Amino acid sequence: MSGSQGPMSGILRSWDEAAERQPAVRAVDVTLRGAGQVMFQDNPLTGLLFIIGIAWGAAVANMPAVAVGAVLGLIVATASATLLRVDQGAFRSGLYGYNGILVGAALPTFLGVDALLWVYIVVGAAVSTIVMQGIANVMTTFKAPALTFPFVLTTWLLLLGGYAFSNLDVVAMGPPAVAGAVGPQVLDLSAQGVIESMLRGISQVFLIGDPITGAIFILALAVSSLWAAAFAVVGTVAAFIVAVVLGATTGDITAGLFGFSAVLTAIALGSVFFKPGLRVTLFALLGIVFTVVAQGALDIVMSPIGIPTLTFPFVVVTWLFLLPREDLAPTPHLPIPGHAVGATAETVSR
Amino acid sequence: MSGSQGPMSGILRSWDEAAERQPAVRAVDVTLRGAGQVMFQDNPLTGLLFIIGIAWGAAVANMPAVAVGAVLGLIVATASATLLRVDQGAFRSGLYGYNGILVGAALPTFLGVDALLWVYIVVGAAVSTIVMQGIANVMTTFKAPALTFPFVLTTWLLLLGGYAFSNLDVVAMGPPAVAGAVGPQVLDLSAQGVIESMLRGISQVFLIGDPITGAIFILALAVSSLWAAAFAVVGTVAAFIVAVVLGATTGDITAGLFGFSAVLTAIALGSVFFKPGLRVTLFALLGIVFTVVAQGALDIVMSPIGIPTLTFPFVVVTWLFLLPREDLAPTPHLPIPGHAVGATAETVSR
Amino acid sequence: MSGSQGPMSGILRSWDEAAERQPAVRAVDVTLRGAGQVMFQDNPLTGLLFIIGIAWGAAVANMPAVAVGAVLGLIVATASATLLRVDQGAFRSGLYGYNGILVGAALPTFLGVDALLWVYIVVGAAVSTIVMQGIANVMTTFKAPALTFPFVLTTWLLLLGGYAFSNLDVVAMGPPAVAGAVGPQVLDLSAQGVIESMLRGISQVFLIGDPITGAIFILALAVSSLWAAAFAVVGTVAAFIVAVVLGATTGDITAGLFGFSAVLTAIALGSVFFKPGLRVTLFALLGIVFTVVAQGALDIVMSPIGIPTLTFPFVVVTWLFLLPREDLAPTPHLPIPGHAVGATAETVSR
Repeated sequence: MSGSQGPMSGILRSWDEAAERQPAVRAVDVTLRGAGQVMFQDNPLTGLLFIIGIAWGAAVANMPAVAVGAVLGLIVATASATLLRVDQGAFRSGLYGYNGILVGAALPTFLGVDALLWVYIVVGAAVSTIVMQGIANVMTTFKAPALTFPFVLTTWLLLLGGYAFSNLDVVAMGPPAVAGAVGPQVLDLSAQGVIESMLRGISQVFLIGDPITGAIFILALAVSSLWAAAFAVVGTVAAFIVAVVLGATTGDITAGLFGFSAVLTAIALGSVFFKPGLRVTLFALLGIVFTVVAQGALDIVMSPIGIPTLTFPFVVVTWLFLLPREDLAPTPHLPIPGHAVGATAETVSR
Repeated sequence: MSGSQGPMSGILRSWDEAAERQPAVRAVDVTLRGAGQVMFQDNPLTGLLFIIGIAWGAAVANMPAVAVGAVLGLIVATASATLLRVDQGAFRSGLYGYNGILVGAALPTFLGVDALLWVYIVVGAAVSTIVMQGIANVMTTFKAPALTFPFVLTTWLLLLGGYAFSNLDVVAMGPPAVAGAVGPQVLDLSAQGVIESMLRGISQVFLIGDPITGAIFILALAVSSLWAAAFAVVGTVAAFIVAVVLGATTGDITAGLFGFSAVLTAIALGSVFFKPGLRVTLFALLGIVFTVVAQGALDIVMSPIGIPTLTFPFVVVTWLFLLPREDLAPTPHLPIPGHAVGATAETVSR
Repeated sequence: MSGSQGPMSGILRSWDEAAERQPAVRAVDVTLRGAGQVMFQDNPLTGLLFIIGIAWGAAVANMPAVAVGAVLGLIVATASATLLRVDQGAFRSGLYGYNGILVGAALPTFLGVDALLWVYIVVGAAVSTIVMQGIANVMTTFKAPALTFPFVLTTWLLLLGGYAFSNLDVVAMGPPAVAGAVGPQVLDLSAQGVIESMLRGISQVFLIGDPITGAIFILALAVSSLWAAAFAVVGTVAAFIVAVVLGATTGDITAGLFGFSAVLTAIALGSVFFKPGLRVTLFALLGIVFTVVAQGALDIVMSPIGIPTLTFPFVVVTWLFLLPREDLAPTPHLPIPGHAVGATAETVSR
């Protein structure tokens, strides 16, 4: 699945060699790979296309701060990793950048843009790198990846500050409220409407609601891994269908808000953490279905505190689906040896 | 504590031999043990009696879907485990069934019964087996069991879907609301009223509020382990007293809703994970008291999102009480070696 | 940083020798060290001064139950550890007392004082010791300390009981409500006002809002570690500034409620878990800034259930900042070997 196997492999190989020799190229290379790793691609061209897609979507929505914030967050997070003592292989593959780009895209999406916000992005992106290494410590114990949880946790705390602090403005989330009833679905089921909704499901991985951005993202995946591109499409199509069948909120489906977590689950389970195949595809489909359920569920959980789920539905379902191991026997329902209360001196009486 | 030591050991031994020889009998055996493991009993007769108790309670309440759902969930969860590569000893003892039966009993209890619900139960039960193996990966690291957390987590997400999706109906929970004041207690303290409340506390382990079901469950435990049956009774009696002393809501006490988690804590701490004895009994009693507190507390935590605690009060208290180990020194309040910021190159100045 | 290096080292050395010889002195010594460990000081004089500071603050506020509860909680938690099989070195350094003193100070702060409350404190303090050993099991796996999370978790459950149980009265928290808008800041920015607010930020570590108590706590730290005292001051000053810049609620800033978690983060990151130095100080400052954000954020998270954050902002940020390790490579975005679904029999097709 590495970039050197995909299309455009010649150009990428020259780039890889330049990155090996020249520190400046290497810095750009690592930074772009950080963007690519949001969808698990250790590929600088994928990262570049992701940034182009973000820039397009931000321009269409007249929200340039989202694109600027994304790049700023990516650079700050990547640079912060150079100040920590981290594994160089992981660093070179962009694993310390992908949370930062998401922090930088999310904050201007939900909070008002002013001078304080840029400071907030810098602090948040730097913290996201620390949190990445911390969560990796925990999850690597269980042989599972950190996924985007460092982004989710860091950004949740920062976004909640929008309610707690009067110098930060909330512009596109909340207000905090207990959940109410869901209205009936009134979907645009024309071919164009459906396809645009599905493409938005892919673009929303970077918090962009734009079909063309979604198409660019598919291309970005394809240059790195055709399987990843295919599973992104499978993810958004399946999520759309499941959300319609369950009766999810019309506006959220159309905006792609039931798609992005499912897209990440699909790529992760279908093409990244397992070798693609029939058995794995069925497993991934079950994961997609449950990600849509988790998206609806976590929307309700978040409503009293007025913040978005971000990619947490993906994180929780993909963690649950990645954690099972074949070499593992659950702790049996029998006396535990070595407990602090224990029964070392007790006799078994019955 | 295994079945072959209990009453009716002759019949069970013949059954065990048949299960060894014939695949069909073995499939039934494993499935029934899955039911038994809800209360930690690796015993097919216990499982069968649990199912009979559920069927009785569902019939009395005119909610047959609860019993059908429970059996469906049990079968689907057990069958799903055969598709994963899991430890065969754990599988044979029913550890991949007990979460599924609870998912299948819970969904028709709280959501409206229609065609979509049955699909939902199948998906949920299958997912509960994946989650079981995932949570076991995490908890076995700490030498602790998964308990019913796979059921709790899976079912919470599914139940929240009732608020998020218009094609799922919420019939017996919520609505989401911030907690209000608790009224004064007006308890039926007649002997019959008290005993029925206590028996309901046992029956509610399977979400049934019926005294006769509670009595059947005690019998089901007794055929496997007299200690387990005794601690189930200790758990519900102690929980009733503590809930009355603290001033818990009358209706919840009468319905047995302060009992079921305490019953599970009592069986787990008193008879399963430690060898029964005086010291262990005192430890279990402290656990029961704190489970009642946790039940009240988590009722408040859940109220803004309108879902029941399920057995989470039991899970959180029993985990906390099982995790302490005698061979363990807490991380001291001293410089941490090998940290990513670290101070390898720093000198101590003071 | 141990007590024998600080001022008053002669007296402390005599005390240490007496504690070695005489069981009664040793019991007092261990108990006092438990108080000192709330701010990470393995020093009985620090602990004694902390208790004096609490007594002063409780007297000024006419809330003697806070001081009595603190001492009761400390004694019960420490004594409970002697009933468990725990590491003797950790026990002797007071690691099984610091959560209990906080439980005992917190419950009379927020709940009405009556006979049931004292039972509640005893149960809570005993449970806090069990939870300490349990959380230590989990966190030591990741080479991180339990911090005050055992106190936070235990006390949250107990405080929520105030809403669930009619025989416990809530007097100084809540009511549960979804978060509203924050008003403009109207701060007293006189030198005295600012200094008093900052001192209260230190005193609030033990839930006391009193400047003199804050000053006593600085002294208590200084007799053990000048670095710890210095970082306590750095923590409260920096937290005050960050809270003002962000626009936090006036009343909370003045009462020191944005200070206490930041003070603990500052001591922990600046002087305890790393050797003090420039690099570590910058790391601690980032931690302090993020603790203030987390304090505001978690205030919002807690509002629908009407309980205080306690020291959880400190716990979550300090955990995140302590977990990163230099010898650790995050799980890469590649197929996971040994998964229960796995792809052992699959071929890579592309």
